[in-house]
Amino acid sequence: MTADTHRPLPDLVLPDEVEVVNVGLPMFADAVHAQGRPVQHVDWRPPAGGDPAAVRALTRLYGDRGTTIDEANAEVLRRLDTGVPFLVAVAPAADVVPGVEGRMLLHCGPAIGWDEVCDPLRRSMRAAVVAEGWAGDTVEADRLLADGEVRLEPANHHDMVVPMASAIGPSAPVLVVENAGDGDGAGDGAPIRAYAPISQGPGDVPWYGRDTDAAIERLRLLRDVAGPAVAAILERTGPLDILSVAAQGIAMGDDLHMRTQAATNLLTRTWLADVADLPEDLRRPFAGFLSGNHLFFLTLAMAAAKSLTLWAGQVSGSSIVTSMARNGTTFGIRLAGSERWFITASPAVGEAMYWSGYGPEDAALDIGDSAVLELVGLGGPAAANSPAVAAFLGGTMADAAEATEAFRRICIGASSRFTLPILGFTGTPVGVDVRMVVESGVTPKVNTGILAASTGAGQVGAGVATAPLGCFVEALLALAED
Amino acid sequence: MTADTHRPLPDLVLPDEVEVVNVGLPMFADAVHAQGRPVQHVDWRPPAGGDPAAVRALTRLYGDRGTTIDEANAEVLRRLDTGVPFLVAVAPAADVVPGVEGRMLLHCGPAIGWDEVCDPLRRSMRAAVVAEGWAGDTVEADRLLADGEVRLEPANHHDMVVPMASAIGPSAPVLVVENAGDGDGAGDGAPIRAYAPISQGPGDVPWYGRDTDAAIERLRLLRDVAGPAVAAILERTGPLDILSVAAQGIAMGDDLHMRTQAATNLLTRTWLADVADLPEDLRRPFAGFLSGNHLFFLTLAMAAAKSLTLWAGQVSGSSIVTSMARNGTTFGIRLAGSERWFITASPAVGEAMYWSGYGPEDAALDIGDSAVLELVGLGGPAAANSPAVAAFLGGTMADAAEATEAFRRICIGASSRFTLPILGFTGTPVGVDVRMVVESGVTPKVNTGILAASTGAGQVGAGVATAPLGCFVEALLALAED
Repeated sequence: MTADTHRPLPDLVLPDEVEVVNVGLPMFADAVHAQGRPVQHVDWRPPAGGDPAAVRALTRLYGDRGTTIDEANAEVLRRLDTGVPFLVAVAPAADVVPGVEGRMLLHCGPAIGWDEVCDPLRRSMRAAVVAEGWAGDTVEADRLLADGEVRLEPANHHDMVVPMASAIGPSAPVLVVENAGDGDGAGDGAPIRAYAPISQGPGDVPWYGRDTDAAIERLRLLRDVAGPAVAAILERTGPLDILSVAAQGIAMGDDLHMRTQAATNLLTRTWLADVADLPEDLRRPFAGFLSGNHLFFLTLAMAAAKSLTLWAGQVSGSSIVTSMARNGTTFGIRLAGSERWFITASPAVGEAMYWSGYGPEDAALDIGDSAVLELVGLGGPAAANSPAVAAFLGGTMADAAEATEAFRRICIGASSRFTLPILGFTGTPVGVDVRMVVESGVTPKVNTGILAASTGAGQVGAGVATAPLGCFVEALLALAED
Repeated sequence: MTADTHRPLPDLVLPDEVEVVNVGLPMFADAVHAQGRPVQHVDWRPPAGGDPAAVRALTRLYGDRGTTIDEANAEVLRRLDTGVPFLVAVAPAADVVPGVEGRMLLHCGPAIGWDEVCDPLRRSMRAAVVAEGWAGDTVEADRLLADGEVRLEPANHHDMVVPMASAIGPSAPVLVVENAGDGDGAGDGAPIRAYAPISQGPGDVPWYGRDTDAAIERLRLLRDVAGPAVAAILERTGPLDILSVAAQGIAMGDDLHMRTQAATNLLTRTWLADVADLPEDLRRPFAGFLSGNHLFFLTLAMAAAKSLTLWAGQVSGSSIVTSMARNGTTFGIRLAGSERWFITASPAVGEAMYWSGYGPEDAALDIGDSAVLELVGLGGPAAANSPAVAAFLGGTMADAAEATEAFRRICIGASSRFTLPILGFTGTPVGVDVRMVVESGVTPKVNTGILAASTGAGQVGAGVATAPLGCFVEALLALAED
């Protein structure tokens, strides 16, 4: 320091008071605050947590290539928002699902070998093997599976989505959903077909990771009763516009993922006269099954969602996520226009409420294809209007609204058909953009059930699974390299 | 003015600026505002509009006698809030409703002579007379009614409530609701019994003021099919806790008056297996009827509400309204502890939305006993969480919340079982206090349908009926005189 620096600076007038705006790390704001001075803190974080590779990829994907990606994304959003999926039929998987033949099970999540299959999904697979008649009991079924005598394939590779720890054999009845896309159903482009199993309902059931006699019997009930019954009803009623019912359900407090009560009940009254007219052998058992299944609409919504993501997935060069699925071991996503999976370990389910007597140590990892709902504006994006979901998110409707708003930060648009009364009838967020996910570090949160890790106890709680960031970063980097 | 007044006032220092708080008439505030000065307006009005008799009555009923009235009211509120009405049976009115015999019709609203009965209720009465077999057609029925050959009695005088322009004959099946009150059903006090007809559903139906062949046929369907079917279902299921379903319905967007979709659908799925098991001759027609009747729960809720107001009505010395009913000509209320009606002319239904081709000139006056719902925390008090009702109240959920808040201004308590998610799970307002109504000038607003005034066209719209103040003032004055 020289004597010169002691001269007053000619043009600088020091203010009487200094007020501070702090951007970024809160510790600087805390220091100012500790000195009793006013400070305004801005919670800014470097994009992508400052990861240089991700920042470079984001720069590229928002920069030069941003325009073409935005165009592709707009088309993806249009398809996710405007496709009209109809339930058109119910038939055994082997009869309608492409590529299903021989001893094959379609399972949730990304591809996986038997060695890595988690306990609840193993139980579900054993139950399916017995129900298919390939084994006399679950011990024999286990041996067949361990010996590689049963081919395991992701349902997603067959245009199907299955909830929780589902494993679907060739004889299982599946919901056939058609989305005409831009076609008119009369030659102008083939409709998009998607599939999902009939909801097994709550209780002692394989999709909850049960392989008891009762659970196996439920699969037979679906095959012998529920499948033929819904097929017969559809022959009378004609195709069902699934998402018009779902939209009403949202206004009535469903998120259509954790809660499907309103949509199920709307459908039940719609079908009542048809149920009453079913032949004797189907009528009573199907009525009993549907009466006890408040989750019946879940797989209808999933199949509809899959038909939208399949159509949207035909668009290339997009940064929108069109697959999101977990098998209880791994968690994977795919982007529109690509068959490539980006895979991370399945997360634990957080913000959990456990049934009495259970805790985190009993919990299997996040599982199921139902997260496809979160990609089309259902589930988490629709949480805001659901008192039942709010109960899992802190208890207040503001907690539920936060779940919806978290999706708004990572979605490129809003649904024009799923609107939330409690948020001024705004649309639910649609179109998860991998750029926005990586930039913000906010990943989709999925409301989901929790299964027993190893005891076969079935569902032990419910909570919120936060998607792992890793697979989104990988997807972003791959998109930037393309 | 003397010279003295020009001396400066010794202790008065005039402020540099004057800010004005105006209480009462807004014109003074407007004048200040017009001079560019800040003014805070307080919308205060003299109690009871300054009516000296009403102010004297209020002074008495809030003063000396206030304590005993408050005690009575607390008991009335406890009964309205905690009674648990069960649907226990369905049977022909003549078999179960006290005092029903011979050629008698039970109608909505206060007592009325044929000469003053409005057109839609006349049509409903003619339809009932034909359905009872007392006349071969509506012309003959009209003659019988005009000749006084059919006794007309208010349903409310027989512990029954009937919706819109209903007229109930002895053969009509009625819902039998029991509310054990403080009794245990085993000798400790007889249960309170209340009644309502089975909902006729939408369409070409007598309660909408129709007397066509189809409307008459609907009454026969209720008698021959719906009544026996619900009776058979109840024999299998046992008593139904009506308000536990209603509470779920509110969380799902019902107000349980204008909108009963969610509660109806919950009940439909609950009853599904029982419907499927009905004998052939009942099963198909009842399933068809229930499938097309989103209003099925309305009269269940009304009968339950009536059982609560009957129990609460046993308390004397209260200022709480326990009857509120309209016959399309007059509008009447009764207070707890008294059989005396206070009657004013029926109001027109305001804030109306008319079906295409209809307008105010086509509208009958406010009609029906369903306003009993507004006395127990349903209907208007539950509007806040109902997107469907909001559509009639301005379109936003804030409009719906205003309808609920208006009831809070005139109710002494809040429901512990009917909670509104959108308002932080607060209870719906319960217990309309005639003192608060007269003091504030705010009367209950009832969401209701609008019937054709004279053409027999049936329902022509829906809207909000604002109860006339006159009968509340009379009730207040009478209470003060007692």
